[in-house]
Amino acid sequence: MFKETKARSIIKTFSWRVLATLTTATLVFIFTGELTIAITIGSIEVVAKILLYFFHERLWDKVNIGRKEIKPFVIWFTGLPSSGKTTIANALTKKLLKRAYTLERLYGDKVRQLFPDEGFSKLERDSHIKRVGLLSSILEKNKVIVVASFVSPYIEARDFVRGICQNFIEVYINTPANICEKYDKKGLYKRAKSGLIKNFTGVNDPYQEPKDPEITLSIESLSLDDCVNRVLDYLNQNKFLV
Amino acid sequence: MFKETKARSIIKTFSWRVLATLTTATLVFIFTGELTIAITIGSIEVVAKILLYFFHERLWDKVNIGRKEIKPFVIWFTGLPSSGKTTIANALTKKLLKRAYTLERLYGDKVRQLFPDEGFSKLERDSHIKRVGLLSSILEKNKVIVVASFVSPYIEARDFVRGICQNFIEVYINTPANICEKYDKKGLYKRAKSGLIKNFTGVNDPYQEPKDPEITLSIESLSLDDCVNRVLDYLNQNKFLV
Repeated sequence: MFKETKARSIIKTFSWRVLATLTTATLVFIFTGELTIAITIGSIEVVAKILLYFFHERLWDKVNIGRKEIKPFVIWFTGLPSSGKTTIANALTKKLLKRAYTLERLYGDKVRQLFPDEGFSKLERDSHIKRVGLLSSILEKNKVIVVASFVSPYIEARDFVRGICQNFIEVYINTPANICEKYDKKGLYKRAKSGLIKNFTGVNDPYQEPKDPEITLSIESLSLDDCVNRVLDYLNQNKFLV
Repeated sequence: MFKETKARSIIKTFSWRVLATLTTATLVFIFTGELTIAITIGSIEVVAKILLYFFHERLWDKVNIGRKEIKPFVIWFTGLPSSGKTTIANALTKKLLKRAYTLERLYGDKVRQLFPDEGFSKLERDSHIKRVGLLSSILEKNKVIVVASFVSPYIEARDFVRGICQNFIEVYINTPANICEKYDKKGLYKRAKSGLIKNFTGVNDPYQEPKDPEITLSIESLSLDDCVNRVLDYLNQNKFLV
């Protein structure tokens, strides 16, 4: 949220005046050949136009033509653990931040570390996702773009989030469990399979596929760059990026 | 988040040029008495300075001098039910919005209506307040002022919120329970006393007073306007309002 202070208008006024009066005086001198007239006109111009320019600036501070404001959105990556959500979301975030958007990156670990007691039952997962959804929707309302990546395995909770956001873009990372397991650096799939982790989505806890996501990506057939570009294309086509 | 588009700079360029060239041509005519010279200089000036002005504008779009950005904060009203939190917070919000700040107003009912199953045990209350605290801190990080009013009866949860916010201002509305009961339009105190409501703060659930709040207000001794002014004074003195 920017407002131009009077000080800015004053400094801009002088910066412009130096540039402009030198031009005028030079022109007058070229056409009249008289230095006195050139200097006299230059001097009067300096005073008159400094005042004019300052008020011109103040007036324009009130006018919003050509000040572009972003159309915020919540882009929500869902998919199995280690399906590529976070990697793609991070790469997208990097690209968006380069364009100087106001953006908040939300992901499971970041939120859950604040709530270490919250577990992974359906009830707890849903409450967690809905709370993050509320957070996302209020950020969006305040012109902050949200890039969220959560396993978010249940349709109902995702639809709850969709319902409270203005522009909700669901990105389904459609990676099969056996491929996810290959990318699983922490070995969570193995530990879940051997029973060491309970309620692990994709092994001993369900994942409900999105029925009508805005974007579906598969890291089996697309490179990371391609995935990010697909998302950027969607955002461009839907006029989210100005 | 505003950025000035090229279109804005172009329109401003022309708006200024009309104003400025008329002044120059008039000055030249007054001092030389020659209409031709006045028109010639005016014409060249139009072209030369339109270009100069446009680039001057584009250059200034990159400069941040005098663009003021707010110092965001989370102002947190705590106190018994019907102690006056919401009334004061609403009046404060109105005053702040008049100054065109980006602001989010958060209060119990607004959040709880989205989570109807969440109860009022200590565990649920703490989880609720901590989630709202996370929301507040992320809004603050994104330059949104937060005006929150929650009973928030437990010190630990309030301190959790304080810990994750940058600028946390705790306002304790120190109204005795018997006065709160008078202002209680919904008759909740009566229903709690007769056992119809359980876990009602101030009757059958504890309220832990803040130990070192930034501001303490009492609606016993202060009018609504006075309360709001006390808060505004604090914000001014601590340079939160620009």
